[in-house]
Amino acid sequence: MAGKPETQIRPISNIVIVVAMEMEALPIVNRFRLTRQPHSSFPERVPWVRYGGTYKDLSINLIWPGKDPASAIGHCFVLSATSPDPFLSGADSIGTIPSALVTYAAIQALQPDLIINAGTTGGFKAKGASIGDIFIISGCAFHDRRIPIPGFDLYGVGLRKAFDTPNLIKELNLKVGRLSTGNSLDMTLQDESLIMANDATVIDMEGAAIAYVADLLKVPAIFVKAVTNIVDGDKPIVEEFLENLAAVADALDPAVEQVVNFINGNSLSEL
Amino acid sequence: MAGKPETQIRPISNIVIVVAMEMEALPIVNRFRLTRQPHSSFPERVPWVRYGGTYKDLSINLIWPGKDPASAIGHCFVLSATSPDPFLSGADSIGTIPSALVTYAAIQALQPDLIINAGTTGGFKAKGASIGDIFIISGCAFHDRRIPIPGFDLYGVGLRKAFDTPNLIKELNLKVGRLSTGNSLDMTLQDESLIMANDATVIDMEGAAIAYVADLLKVPAIFVKAVTNIVDGDKPIVEEFLENLAAVADALDPAVEQVVNFINGNSLSEL
Repeated sequence: MAGKPETQIRPISNIVIVVAMEMEALPIVNRFRLTRQPHSSFPERVPWVRYGGTYKDLSINLIWPGKDPASAIGHCFVLSATSPDPFLSGADSIGTIPSALVTYAAIQALQPDLIINAGTTGGFKAKGASIGDIFIISGCAFHDRRIPIPGFDLYGVGLRKAFDTPNLIKELNLKVGRLSTGNSLDMTLQDESLIMANDATVIDMEGAAIAYVADLLKVPAIFVKAVTNIVDGDKPIVEEFLENLAAVADALDPAVEQVVNFINGNSLSEL
Repeated sequence: MAGKPETQIRPISNIVIVVAMEMEALPIVNRFRLTRQPHSSFPERVPWVRYGGTYKDLSINLIWPGKDPASAIGHCFVLSATSPDPFLSGADSIGTIPSALVTYAAIQALQPDLIINAGTTGGFKAKGASIGDIFIISGCAFHDRRIPIPGFDLYGVGLRKAFDTPNLIKELNLKVGRLSTGNSLDMTLQDESLIMANDATVIDMEGAAIAYVADLLKVPAIFVKAVTNIVDGDKPIVEEFLENLAAVADALDPAVEQVVNFINGNSLSEL
């Protein structure tokens, strides 16, 4: 281990899990018995929500960017505290910008050893994805930042490798693939062609933004993604996503638990 | 003025100018004789650049997100300190994510009274834009966040009003229009149709992200945009953008000076 930085060889003690949707976050929060934390780590007005706690030898914080303040105060919804439909209480702050911001703020406030981005994802059956599959991501790129100027084109793609976890992948027998990120839930022909160029097996709306910020601040990041819908299948993306979201979000938290159990007691270089 | 918060009625004293490209930033830096500041306000490793100084009664900081670290260290460029071509020294960190991050970090570090986003923009001649025009933006929205789920659709569009500056617009006789923001320099049919739906006269790659963060943290934001290319004209977008960027960036800084001169000595409610 000579030559490795100290953070690589001491046991990981402090992880931050970044999750975009409340429906993805709550099963993880419950599984690790995290509790909602006061907002002191973040500016007063932001809707970002932090759940924290101790699990085995780890300090775990889960950050969810919260509901969009503009849509949550009635621009497009009637607030309903009793509604069982999470979509009725405002739109989750999904997409690259809120995820980039909370990742930045959480790293600044909490100085984690490791970021885990956990979430649902669309998968390509042609690349081996099936509904309910759990993927560990090898690398992330964007498919909706087309900047056809030499140099800027590659900046737009923004490929970032995830932190390498060969032992974790082998031990948990998880699928591995590349992730492509864009801010839309549908997929245009241009998106599709760039997703192919990114050699992506799965797509989401946050991963590459979280990878960008983690890389900027030199914090290792890994990505645990559960497939809600098959992008190259027969069903419309949005319909299948909504149909499967709750069930797959429930499949995500045991996978995150497995990953966290493997992390517990290990150093970064042992992952 | 009774009932207005104190920040609305005292003279503005502290402004932050957010600019995406070095070619747009440097003429403004020179015009206000700002000097490059040590990175103490920001984390150590980020490429973000802060120029600061005093101009008349104002403390002015200009923040530029810097060159992309991944492309700047040779992934796609040979570094050349003597090259007059700014594109050769790496890609500027353009687009929504870096602008959102620096706006967030600058507000946290510098607590400005007002954010000014200054930059170049594409314009629609059908909506009255010509090359070299300076626009003050009335509202910003996104055209590349298509999320066809009720509520999430409006969140994706993310319309935010700019801070209202009727006196400034009248005094300086500037054009006014809506801005639509996306992460690509080209324009697909889907982009175009959403730009139309946003009723945009001009388009850029940062504005709505800066408006989102400023709104989140309740800091007033205004947008000064100089038209580099006509989107609904005969020339390809990218070609015309590159052809006119330097000249229009030079037209931007006198406009920013006019705006700052008007701001100087006035309160927010007098703008």
